[in-house]
Amino acid sequence: MEQVRIPFENLVATLTSCLIKQGFEQDRAIRCATLFAQADRDGVYSHGVNRFFLFLDFIKKGFVIPQNEPELIAQIGMMERYDGRSGPGNLNAEFAMDRAIELAKSFGMSAVTLMNTNHWMRAGNFGWQAADAHCIGICFTNTISNMPTWGGSEPKLGNNPLVIAIPRSSGHVVLDMAMSQFAYGKMEIAKKKGEQLPFDGGFDSNGNLTKSPEDILFSHLALPTGMWKGAGLSLMLDILVTVLSGGNSTMEVGKDGIEKGLSQVFICFDPVKLNLTEWMESKIDSIIADLKSSSVFEDKSVRYPGEQVLQIRESNLKSGIPINTELWDKLLTLSTS
Amino acid sequence: MEQVRIPFENLVATLTSCLIKQGFEQDRAIRCATLFAQADRDGVYSHGVNRFFLFLDFIKKGFVIPQNEPELIAQIGMMERYDGRSGPGNLNAEFAMDRAIELAKSFGMSAVTLMNTNHWMRAGNFGWQAADAHCIGICFTNTISNMPTWGGSEPKLGNNPLVIAIPRSSGHVVLDMAMSQFAYGKMEIAKKKGEQLPFDGGFDSNGNLTKSPEDILFSHLALPTGMWKGAGLSLMLDILVTVLSGGNSTMEVGKDGIEKGLSQVFICFDPVKLNLTEWMESKIDSIIADLKSSSVFEDKSVRYPGEQVLQIRESNLKSGIPINTELWDKLLTLSTS
Repeated sequence: MEQVRIPFENLVATLTSCLIKQGFEQDRAIRCATLFAQADRDGVYSHGVNRFFLFLDFIKKGFVIPQNEPELIAQIGMMERYDGRSGPGNLNAEFAMDRAIELAKSFGMSAVTLMNTNHWMRAGNFGWQAADAHCIGICFTNTISNMPTWGGSEPKLGNNPLVIAIPRSSGHVVLDMAMSQFAYGKMEIAKKKGEQLPFDGGFDSNGNLTKSPEDILFSHLALPTGMWKGAGLSLMLDILVTVLSGGNSTMEVGKDGIEKGLSQVFICFDPVKLNLTEWMESKIDSIIADLKSSSVFEDKSVRYPGEQVLQIRESNLKSGIPINTELWDKLLTLSTS
Repeated sequence: MEQVRIPFENLVATLTSCLIKQGFEQDRAIRCATLFAQADRDGVYSHGVNRFFLFLDFIKKGFVIPQNEPELIAQIGMMERYDGRSGPGNLNAEFAMDRAIELAKSFGMSAVTLMNTNHWMRAGNFGWQAADAHCIGICFTNTISNMPTWGGSEPKLGNNPLVIAIPRSSGHVVLDMAMSQFAYGKMEIAKKKGEQLPFDGGFDSNGNLTKSPEDILFSHLALPTGMWKGAGLSLMLDILVTVLSGGNSTMEVGKDGIEKGLSQVFICFDPVKLNLTEWMESKIDSIIADLKSSSVFEDKSVRYPGEQVLQIRESNLKSGIPINTELWDKLLTLSTS
C-alpha cells in the first residue's frame, strides 16, 4: 500500500477539521484528533486513523454522541463513578484518567470508572497519559465478545485490553495488551498476505488450534493469550469493570452485535504523594537494565514494554506519520468539503 | 503414590504441633498450619503440605523467622507499607490482606505492600480471604527468576503469581495464575510419568518451543503464559511490587539463588463502602451463567475460575484431605517427637 508521510501537527489539524464538521466543539475536536494521531505517531496503526471512518460511522448512527461528556454518578473518597453518556470513547477515557490522576495526587491512589462509554481506540494512550503526569496508571476495558473461553466453541469473552504504565525519566514502561494472542486486525493482514501466523492464534471450526488466519477469521475463535490463563484473566477484567462501574458486561455489550456501551476502570497511584520517589527511578532502571542484559538466542533481541513506542515515535515525528495515501486523500476531502 | 485421607482438623492439628516444635507461638502455629492445610483442602497440592518440609528447612537456615511479624513502615491514607522482616510468607500475606480489607472497609479501596517477605505458598488463599470478607481482592508477588523474557535465553523474569478474587454468595470467582504457562511442579510430575506436556511449555536449550518437560527442566526456560504477553505482564508486576513496596525486585531476590526477600502488593475494594451491592451479585451471576451456557467442542466443558476449588473442597472435607502416606508418616513423627 502506498503511503504518505504527514507531519504530526498537520495530521491533528486535518482530523480536527473533520471532527468539527461532525459537530464537535473545537476544543474537543482538537483533543479527539490528537488521540487518534498519537496512535499513528506511536506506531499503533490499527487504532489510529485506520479506525477514524468507523468512528465517524458510529457518530452518524448515533452510537457515539460527540458533545456528550461524562457525568458524575457517585463519589466516595478516592473513587469516582461516571456515566460516559455514549460520548466519544477516547475523550471519555482521557477525562477519566485525568480525574484518576487528580484524585491520586490528593489521596495517593484512586479509581475512576466509566459506564456507557465507547471504544477508547488505542488503549496505551491512557497509560502514557498517566506516566506523563508522573503517575502509575492501570486501566482496562471490556469489549464485545470475540474469544471463546477455554473449551468453548463460541465467542463468550472480550479481548479486554489491559494497560499498566510506570513513569520513568528515561522512558516510561508501558504495557498495552489485549487478552487475545493476536489482534483480529493482525490476522486480517496475514490473511491478505497469504501468510500463516507465527504461532497458534485461534481455533478452527473443529476446535483445533491453528496458525491459519483464514480459519480463525471464519470461526471467530481467537486464542486467549496463554490459553486457559488469558481466558480466566479476561473474565476477571470483565467482572471488575462491570461491578466497579455498574455498567454493561461483555455479554450485554454484544447483545445487539454492536460494540458500544462499554465499561472501563482507571486506577492511579501518585508516587510523590505515596513517598515512593526515593527508590522508584533507580529500582526501575536496574530492572530494565537487567532485562536488557539478558543473553539471547541467535538473531533475537529483548525489549521492555514501551521501548519500541519511543523509537517509532521519534522516527515518525522526524519523518512524518505514515498514512495510507488513499485514506489521507479521503481525510483531506472530508476536512475541506 | 499411596495416599491417606486425613480429616481437615486433624491435618491442621498435626501441622500445628510440628510448627510449635519449630518455635512458633501457638496462635501463629495454628494460623500457619491452617493456611498450609487450606491449600490441600482446595486441591492445590503443590503448595500445601508438599512444601511443608521445604518451609521447615528455610526456618532451620534462618531464611524464615517464625516469630517475626510485619512492621509498619509508612501509612498514607488508604495505603500501608510493611516490612515483612523475613517472617513466614503465608502469615505475612494473610496479615497484609487483613489490613487491606480493614482499610477498604474504611476508605472504599486500599493497598498494602510487603517488602522482605517470604513465599506465600498458595497464592489463592489470600484471594479467598478477601472474598470471604465480602471484598474484591487483588494481590501479586514477585518470585525468583524462572522464565526468560521474549527472545532471551536465560531466566530473567519471575512467574509472579497474580490473584483476582470477586465475592459471590453462590461461590466466589477467584483467579489464581502464575505467569508461566505450566508450573515447574507440573513439569516435574509429567517428566516422572514420562509424559509430554499438552501444549508448548517452554524452550529447549536451542530456543525452540517444546512440550518436553525434561528439556524445559534442563534449560530452566519455562514459557511465559501467552509468550511475549505474559513476559510483559510479569515484568510489570515485578516493577509494581518493587516500586510500591520499596522492596526487592526479581533480579535482587535471585542474587544468592534463594527465593527470599520477596515483594508483594494487596489491593482491596469494599463493595459495601463503594455502594456497588445494588447490582454486584446479579451482574456477576449473569456473567457466570452466560459463560457456563457456552457451546463446547465435544468432550470439553467450561469452568469459571474458582469453580473447581469449591468442588474439590467439598469432596476433600467429606472424604478427608489426600496426603501422601510417606509424607503423613513424616509429619506424625515430627509432631510427636
